[in-house]
Amino acid sequence: VSVTAPEGFVASGVHCGLRKNGRLDLSLVRSLAPATGTAMFTINRMLAAPVVVSREHLDLAEPQAVVTNSGVANAATGERGLLDARATAAETGRLLGLDAEEVLVLSTGVIGALLPLSNVIAGVREAAATLSDDGGADSAAAIMTTDTRPKEAVARGSGFAVGGMAKGSGMIHPQLATMLAVLTTDYPLEPGEALDFLRPAVDASFNAISVDGECSTNDAVVLLANGASGVGRTPASDEQFALCIRRVCGELAKQIVADGEGATVLAEIAVRGAATEVEARAIAERVATSPLVKTALYGHDANWGRIAAAAGSARVDGGFAQLDPGRLSIAIDGVAVLVDGRPSGHEPALTNGHCAIDIDLALGDGGATYLTSDLSYDYVRINAEYRS
Amino acid sequence: VSVTAPEGFVASGVHCGLRKNGRLDLSLVRSLAPATGTAMFTINRMLAAPVVVSREHLDLAEPQAVVTNSGVANAATGERGLLDARATAAETGRLLGLDAEEVLVLSTGVIGALLPLSNVIAGVREAAATLSDDGGADSAAAIMTTDTRPKEAVARGSGFAVGGMAKGSGMIHPQLATMLAVLTTDYPLEPGEALDFLRPAVDASFNAISVDGECSTNDAVVLLANGASGVGRTPASDEQFALCIRRVCGELAKQIVADGEGATVLAEIAVRGAATEVEARAIAERVATSPLVKTALYGHDANWGRIAAAAGSARVDGGFAQLDPGRLSIAIDGVAVLVDGRPSGHEPALTNGHCAIDIDLALGDGGATYLTSDLSYDYVRINAEYRS
Repeated sequence: VSVTAPEGFVASGVHCGLRKNGRLDLSLVRSLAPATGTAMFTINRMLAAPVVVSREHLDLAEPQAVVTNSGVANAATGERGLLDARATAAETGRLLGLDAEEVLVLSTGVIGALLPLSNVIAGVREAAATLSDDGGADSAAAIMTTDTRPKEAVARGSGFAVGGMAKGSGMIHPQLATMLAVLTTDYPLEPGEALDFLRPAVDASFNAISVDGECSTNDAVVLLANGASGVGRTPASDEQFALCIRRVCGELAKQIVADGEGATVLAEIAVRGAATEVEARAIAERVATSPLVKTALYGHDANWGRIAAAAGSARVDGGFAQLDPGRLSIAIDGVAVLVDGRPSGHEPALTNGHCAIDIDLALGDGGATYLTSDLSYDYVRINAEYRS
Repeated sequence: VSVTAPEGFVASGVHCGLRKNGRLDLSLVRSLAPATGTAMFTINRMLAAPVVVSREHLDLAEPQAVVTNSGVANAATGERGLLDARATAAETGRLLGLDAEEVLVLSTGVIGALLPLSNVIAGVREAAATLSDDGGADSAAAIMTTDTRPKEAVARGSGFAVGGMAKGSGMIHPQLATMLAVLTTDYPLEPGEALDFLRPAVDASFNAISVDGECSTNDAVVLLANGASGVGRTPASDEQFALCIRRVCGELAKQIVADGEGATVLAEIAVRGAATEVEARAIAERVATSPLVKTALYGHDANWGRIAAAAGSARVDGGFAQLDPGRLSIAIDGVAVLVDGRPSGHEPALTNGHCAIDIDLALGDGGATYLTSDLSYDYVRINAEYRS
């Protein structure tokens, strides 16, 4: 199901030789009815070729199909990389009876390697020939890299559905770091509307997760809406649709963090009482990405001292987020460990795979939440060996 | 030698029960002649009690002695922590015939635990009784935490010397993160001058190193100058003194990175061609702290794609540092791996414990250098187990 759960979408996933051992490595998702859509991309300055090309295409046409390869990121590949991405879109369009500009191209994998274009073109042909309305699972499998399991989610409203698939484990961080997601819906949207629904859902989900604080060259979240459900729109249905998008994004984000490279603990960080929202977010992000906090989580150590130190070093434009050590309170798994700057003497035993970290600065109304995982031996192993 | 290399300084290091197995854990450094001095402290908002107290003392008097304990950071300890730090300074002053305000207090170790004051006071008494002009080595050993070896350096000018000791392995990052250094000199300085010499040396050394991107609650660099060499000052001797301070700081910073928790590779990152100095520094820092770059170094993988991705995500006030993927060049150990945005197809074999990463943005005149180390299994082990 997932991307093929809504009406009027077909998908497929094939192996074209970019990943080893016959693993699926090329995914195609297509709307059968004319769709509108949008995408949000990485803010890394080192944009991968497919991101450059897909942004161009979105400026020129409404997207009708998304072709994604894993194994090779087609990033830092110069002019040749742009030509390869354009050729991939053109061949996909030709096979599906679409303009090249109606096709978005996504890539994920090793940076700096050229795309083996003949493999990709062969893969596109096989993928186009095998599109089906139960191809969602193959499609979700084909976008994986170091992921240990595919990520899929579906939410249903009254008469319509939102489906989604995502990949991402290492380099997961806000601003869509090494994360790809493709969302589909048969809810009817007018051209230009999709971003209004997508952006708040992404900010509350994919942009509030971190595995290792990296920010990749290739990340993208795509939304295609084809209206094939035929439901009529009301303010209430719009609200329900917004909720469904948010639920699918939230569910996929959680799956990504839980599948973080080497992750054994999923930690939910909630900051409140910050001077501003921006500062709350900076503090939550700093704690979520601190190697010392993350190794402590791995060691099942409720090391709130490291949490306090990380919070105190959160940067915002122009300096550091405000923090008064005498007003700071921290609770871990509901146990108050620091109260108004004084250690309580109590510490929870971190025994399971979840951890809730609550930080109250008692300065203002700013709040933010963030998901993160621990930093384990396996994170080091996976990333020290990734290219070999 | 180290802090006792210059004339007129005595030091000692004793065990008072803060660290296990009889390890030295309390250091005392004292000038025998009236000294002037200064200190630079962490910019973490979560200031440790000794930092708060030492800053107060510097506002009131010229520092004549520095007492440092390891094992307990006396951070996040509220009002009680401040009282403990003040009591430590007062007892040290009483024993040495100094005002409490003439004593600086430094601490390093676990955050959130209260200082066992009776141990510290007993330690101060023993340390005061054992001060000697060959106590530098004990003093340097007594400030260690997870350090595997003491860090000491001496530079000599014409008729004067600069000595220094430092500690720091985990949490090493700019703005003096979990790093302590005490510098001494018998060069004559006027009150108020010390910072003019210390700041540029610190910016070029301790503020340009990273082990894991953390920024601690306790970091400090102290300089005491007592003029006991009796040398006369000239512009040339001032220049020589500035060079000596810089050399001692640089040497200590290098020792700290080389002793980074679990470090097996020392990497020197040089950025040039950035739009501004500030952007150059942001890019160098981002690359130096990227977990993906650091795990690749551990795997002896010249993974320049991760370097490029990290460079592209460097933040500065108001946004991201400028980077044009088509102009970016990267060389590793002198081998050009990316030239004007195109992979060269060559990659060096990273076989030894050093790695030079050169990044040229070809945009402007901004340059910066940064020292970092790799991210290894041992980093995870040490930090997952640190409190247990």
